[in-house]
Amino acid sequence: MPVAKQAAGMSGREYLTAIVEGRFPAPPIARLMGFHVSQLGEGLAVFECTPGEQHYNPIGLVHGGLACTLLDSAMGCAVHTTLPAGSAYTTLEVKVNLVRPITKETGLLRCEGRVIHSGKRVATAEGKLLDAAGKLYAHGTTTCMIFSADAVR
Amino acid sequence: MPVAKQAAGMSGREYLTAIVEGRFPAPPIARLMGFHVSQLGEGLAVFECTPGEQHYNPIGLVHGGLACTLLDSAMGCAVHTTLPAGSAYTTLEVKVNLVRPITKETGLLRCEGRVIHSGKRVATAEGKLLDAAGKLYAHGTTTCMIFSADAVR
Amino acid sequence: MPVAKQAAGMSGREYLTAIVEGRFPAPPIARLMGFHVSQLGEGLAVFECTPGEQHYNPIGLVHGGLACTLLDSAMGCAVHTTLPAGSAYTTLEVKVNLVRPITKETGLLRCEGRVIHSGKRVATAEGKLLDAAGKLYAHGTTTCMIFSADAVR
Amino acid sequence: MPVAKQAAGMSGREYLTAIVEGRFPAPPIARLMGFHVSQLGEGLAVFECTPGEQHYNPIGLVHGGLACTLLDSAMGCAVHTTLPAGSAYTTLEVKVNLVRPITKETGLLRCEGRVIHSGKRVATAEGKLLDAAGKLYAHGTTTCMIFSADAVR
Repeated sequence: MPVAKQAAGMSGREYLTAIVEGRFPAPPIARLMGFHVSQLGEGLAVFECTPGEQHYNPIGLVHGGLACTLLDSAMGCAVHTTLPAGSAYTTLEVKVNLVRPITKETGLLRCEGRVIHSGKRVATAEGKLLDAAGKLYAHGTTTCMIFSADAVR
Repeated sequence: MPVAKQAAGMSGREYLTAIVEGRFPAPPIARLMGFHVSQLGEGLAVFECTPGEQHYNPIGLVHGGLACTLLDSAMGCAVHTTLPAGSAYTTLEVKVNLVRPITKETGLLRCEGRVIHSGKRVATAEGKLLDAAGKLYAHGTTTCMIFSADAVR
Repeated sequence: MPVAKQAAGMSGREYLTAIVEGRFPAPPIARLMGFHVSQLGEGLAVFECTPGEQHYNPIGLVHGGLACTLLDSAMGCAVHTTLPAGSAYTTLEVKVNLVRPITKETGLLRCEGRVIHSGKRVATAEGKLLDAAGKLYAHGTTTCMIFSADAVR
Repeated sequence: MPVAKQAAGMSGREYLTAIVEGRFPAPPIARLMGFHVSQLGEGLAVFECTPGEQHYNPIGLVHGGLACTLLDSAMGCAVHTTLPAGSAYTTLEVKVNLVRPITKETGLLRCEGRVIHSGKRVATAEGKLLDAAGKLYAHGTTTCMIFSADAVR
């Protein structure tokens, strides 16, 4: 996988920026679910998604799995932006509160992930899922473990 | 939506059984993500999914959102199986631990949701995501609020 | 219990203010663990505690239960500040991340709880546990259910 | 601290057994809150506590912090029982659902912690807080990081 080789020498932020700028392909899950990363900063990652009927559960609302997937992505990538080349992370756990129903009328959702704690071996982040007016639909936290990328090769 | 009208007079278990037996259509999210409910019991719901490349994140592993979506589904439906006609539930929060990486080599995953506490207004459930050999990939808990379906009409 | 009778006609904020001002007694748990509420606002509650050896676990650090107790208190009271007379709440779940070890050298801890989502039946809040320099030791979230106080009498 | 020196060469289970058998002193938090470890097994730790008025919150119920402290203890010690000499753990996060109110009439509580996943670097556990009749009052999960004890010296 040539992308993986190129990515190996990049910091987390350089790598994610390459995806935002289209130099690296979007991951399959993003195409499947219909979301993309739209903004990056130090300890910050923002994703966007417009929910539709394809995300519906049996009772005519967007399935909670979409909010979980967006928050997991945004919070994990927020941690990733803080990692130098040679460091990797894995998500240990994700916790999501679903505070308002989402439908296809909700429109564009913005999912903001922000690092709360950035340690040597552990990082935590929080996330918010908001509509264009800033109304909150879901929020969450995550715990990630950080390790040397060499350790997994 | 004629399904919604038919569903209104059914218990949670009758309604979910109608989906398992194909009398009601599978929800869109299940078709999008490629999972289905395979078994139901009192306070129990089991989903199945075979992860593939379409679920991959940028680093060549299945995105954590798939485990979250399966666990949210299985745990929520486990609660749903306990509800009489006229009762509805909403998921307040989901918490998922990701304990092993999932790839397309993992094969068929079985996601079991089981009710832990079943009260008048609140129910909790736990879930496990296992492969065919019973190896654990993720586990979680959820908190659901139960209310009269009339209250939301 | 005369306090309960007096409290029945008060809003959450009036009731908590009465505790801060010493007109109502501090709850037993606060005396046992050695903490007190120090500041209140709309959707905000701040507690203070100076950890000592009495809070230690077997390995010479403050037990995680102290952070959990402080965060549960601050987040629950933050929700309580938003409730009118006649409303009550119960904490459904608490989630706490412990990000740094706490010892008796840590000194005065400040635990800030803030409401994230305030709905008719459900509220969520977040909390941070900080030292005098603003260094973060733990953080958390909570989900509370809101109901008419009449419903429990 | 002579206990720490003695403990250094012991497995987690040997160390906890020494506390159960009174060869090592109970930790201060256990004396403060009034609980003790009563049973140990491979990946299992059970604590006992009889809640009283000293644990009450302002509204005449036992504060949620007691359940959090007991579950944190039982789940963390369950992980500890699996560790060989030279390994240590730290609790990254704790998540607790409070499903029934606890009062001084509840009587003896039994808090069971059980390991769910035991990996090289991460372990997870679950816990249940039950009365003498087996009725459930709270349940939880935890994520712990495991490391060489040398790493922290």
